[in-house]
Amino acid sequence: MKHENINQSSFGMIGLGTMGSNLLQNIADHGYSCSGYDNDPKKVDTVNKLGNDNIHAFSDIKDFVQNLKSPKIVMMLVPAGKIVDSVIAELLQVMDKGDIIIDGGNSHFTDTEKRFEDLEKKGYHFVGMGVSGGEEGARKGPSMMPGGDKKAYETIKPILEKIAAHVNGAPTVAYMGERSAGHFVKMVHNGIEYALMQLISETYEFMKSGLQMDDKEIHDVFKKWNEGRLKSYLIEITRDIFAYKKKGEDHLFFNDIKDEAKAKGTGKWTSQAAMDLAVPVPMIDIAVSMRDLSKYKELRTEASKLYPDATKSDLKDKTESIEKLEQAFYFSMVSAYAQGMHLLDQANVEFKYNLNLDVIAKIWRGGCIIRSEFLEDIYAAYKNNPKLAHLFLDDSIHKSLVKSIPGIRNVVSEAVLSGIAVPTYSVALSYFDNVRSEEMPANLIQAQRDFFGSHTYELKGKEGVFHTDWEDPNH
Amino acid sequence: MKHENINQSSFGMIGLGTMGSNLLQNIADHGYSCSGYDNDPKKVDTVNKLGNDNIHAFSDIKDFVQNLKSPKIVMMLVPAGKIVDSVIAELLQVMDKGDIIIDGGNSHFTDTEKRFEDLEKKGYHFVGMGVSGGEEGARKGPSMMPGGDKKAYETIKPILEKIAAHVNGAPTVAYMGERSAGHFVKMVHNGIEYALMQLISETYEFMKSGLQMDDKEIHDVFKKWNEGRLKSYLIEITRDIFAYKKKGEDHLFFNDIKDEAKAKGTGKWTSQAAMDLAVPVPMIDIAVSMRDLSKYKELRTEASKLYPDATKSDLKDKTESIEKLEQAFYFSMVSAYAQGMHLLDQANVEFKYNLNLDVIAKIWRGGCIIRSEFLEDIYAAYKNNPKLAHLFLDDSIHKSLVKSIPGIRNVVSEAVLSGIAVPTYSVALSYFDNVRSEEMPANLIQAQRDFFGSHTYELKGKEGVFHTDWEDPNH
Repeated sequence: MKHENINQSSFGMIGLGTMGSNLLQNIADHGYSCSGYDNDPKKVDTVNKLGNDNIHAFSDIKDFVQNLKSPKIVMMLVPAGKIVDSVIAELLQVMDKGDIIIDGGNSHFTDTEKRFEDLEKKGYHFVGMGVSGGEEGARKGPSMMPGGDKKAYETIKPILEKIAAHVNGAPTVAYMGERSAGHFVKMVHNGIEYALMQLISETYEFMKSGLQMDDKEIHDVFKKWNEGRLKSYLIEITRDIFAYKKKGEDHLFFNDIKDEAKAKGTGKWTSQAAMDLAVPVPMIDIAVSMRDLSKYKELRTEASKLYPDATKSDLKDKTESIEKLEQAFYFSMVSAYAQGMHLLDQANVEFKYNLNLDVIAKIWRGGCIIRSEFLEDIYAAYKNNPKLAHLFLDDSIHKSLVKSIPGIRNVVSEAVLSGIAVPTYSVALSYFDNVRSEEMPANLIQAQRDFFGSHTYELKGKEGVFHTDWEDPNH
Repeated sequence: MKHENINQSSFGMIGLGTMGSNLLQNIADHGYSCSGYDNDPKKVDTVNKLGNDNIHAFSDIKDFVQNLKSPKIVMMLVPAGKIVDSVIAELLQVMDKGDIIIDGGNSHFTDTEKRFEDLEKKGYHFVGMGVSGGEEGARKGPSMMPGGDKKAYETIKPILEKIAAHVNGAPTVAYMGERSAGHFVKMVHNGIEYALMQLISETYEFMKSGLQMDDKEIHDVFKKWNEGRLKSYLIEITRDIFAYKKKGEDHLFFNDIKDEAKAKGTGKWTSQAAMDLAVPVPMIDIAVSMRDLSKYKELRTEASKLYPDATKSDLKDKTESIEKLEQAFYFSMVSAYAQGMHLLDQANVEFKYNLNLDVIAKIWRGGCIIRSEFLEDIYAAYKNNPKLAHLFLDDSIHKSLVKSIPGIRNVVSEAVLSGIAVPTYSVALSYFDNVRSEEMPANLIQAQRDFFGSHTYELKGKEGVFHTDWEDPNH
């Protein structure tokens, strides 16, 4: 399998699954000579059989690396976890100091942090890069979130800018920030994705069980929404899913799929990291826990028999209901992005990433799974005020959000009275109602904590930390 | 400071803060000779000045250990984390194989897991024990959740059973299960505590902002509730907080406390561990994120100016509203305990703890912060059916829960329309409405995941894992 007399390649890819292969083809399309490596000879064969003169795949990692120009650029697209470490260990045997290693997988940002430090000490340039867009994105133009070694980014920038998606002429790739910033940003991207997907599934449930709409009517709503301010990749594919029938069948195919949502963990990571940073992202939390609940089919079946009684709402004027639902969706979508951006903002303070939230919104506008019209507004908001503390505080978003409040209140209230579960809508609203509360009832929690555990409290307008013996009759 | 000619002690305590000192006094009250150690000489002095003949405190760890009978029993009540490891390292210098070390602090269960394995290998008996009840509980009778070395538990059992609280003659301590089971159970206890405290704070908010009730009226509600099925320690202290005024002042003191809830992390740990185990505990999640949100005072103040418009609800018949609120509280309280017990049940499967949920409910009935009348029902439910998959499925709980559904739907709907934030009530209901859904809209999520990421899906009634090219026009 030794390839001889091959021109040296500008870019090497480890991991030739569909994503890796598609990304290589994307790079090759832009005139770069590339190499691929996989320890599965079948995948190597598949790539070589593409017959693309700009791509050469190897089943020996040494051959693969030797075929790269210096400084050698190697990107890994392998499963997150220990495999990344073992591939890096192999690479260090055959690469030179000053070479560039890119981890393009969904690695946990704390792993990337360690790898960055370790490789920096050893003299290698490491870039942790989130890649979004799925297989199609990889082939036609993904959104990429590289972080870590800035000099290395400058070297790979011309390639990445060419293969990225483009929005209004601007590539959907940019340097995110220091060390593990790229993977942190990608993790939060996925967290927002979880919230939006859960929101869409509840929208479907509300239309089906609440408004008694059939699949065709639901399809038409998603189609219409995708022509307005809700236009987004996730609404677009939902529209298409609501049109997809297998040949010769007259029901929508997705109805045959088991109602058990799987997950690869990035949503969970987002919630867990947000809790460590003490930033509330309750829509992401609930999206994670609803995916988890979907696994308990037996429990749900049994409970459905015991608790059948839901007072279905009367069929209202559908047009009016859909208008309110559109407002509710808009409201909740804003809240989901706002929670994610807030998390990025706070992580930036804590981890000193040097993130630019406008740049993040800018590159999310195309290529990635959460691309949407609304990202233009987010981009504008942070461009207008890089220090914006929260999206709710942006003037323009404030104006649209206010108009959507009646819709969200109506939808949640209707659902609650009708027994339709819309946890993500509910949480979007609760979060908002708490954010707009100058006073929260948390003083009562502090009093309780001090009462039972002497955990002390702070007072309004007075410095210091105090304790009260709440049971002392002589206070 | 060397104490000579002291009778050898039956029990040693490291960490002589209020908790440690109170627990020692509790043990001494039951006729045991005890020793204490702290590296802070002031705390040692304070304990020695108690003048209790059964208690001797030392500022030298060697003296302290030498004064213990064999097998030596040493309990640590020190801050969770590295301090526990360094105290253990010190102890190993002066204790003998076969001696017993108890960690009575709020250690993370994964730390306890490692320490248990390590100490077992070294020949020491290690018990990770959660202790709940605060300072007062420590003095008068806590609830204790020991796990780990069962033989060691048998040795310390007579002491623990005497110092525990007692409910209907039964002590609120029992062997929980293998290895880190004790700290896991205590962590979930605290998670439930977070949910209940947040629920009470929202109840207060609903009465104040929604029903326009004054402090006295609110006090009377909590007082009345504590005489019925909601009777519990947390309602009891809330009642007392709503009566507590500083001498010479005519407003309730807790109103002076800052509305920023602090946390020591056990609620967060519960949510994070539940996500790792893929068990939904959304009421705990939201309680954690609402504590986090309380920190953002500046953001909330700014947002409150931008979004002032909440349509306050009309003052309804207060008596009727309070009845519905009582139903809503009951419903949500059941849901909070149910989520916690479900987490314990699943952790039991995953970690092979050998937990007995009836025993856990039994010892939580007294001494601890979440003790309540309702724990009698939980105890009965699991005693009646140790394999009960979820509290919602218990006959007796089902009967009461069904009657509370109108109340929770009404309260959440009213709050949502009035702009009052009741996230925990909302989530209690959403969780319930999803648990009682035989079908969840998660099939749509699976279709989306397969559409954009080829993540595959499963089909109803057909084995295997499948992928569809959703954009293939010739499907």
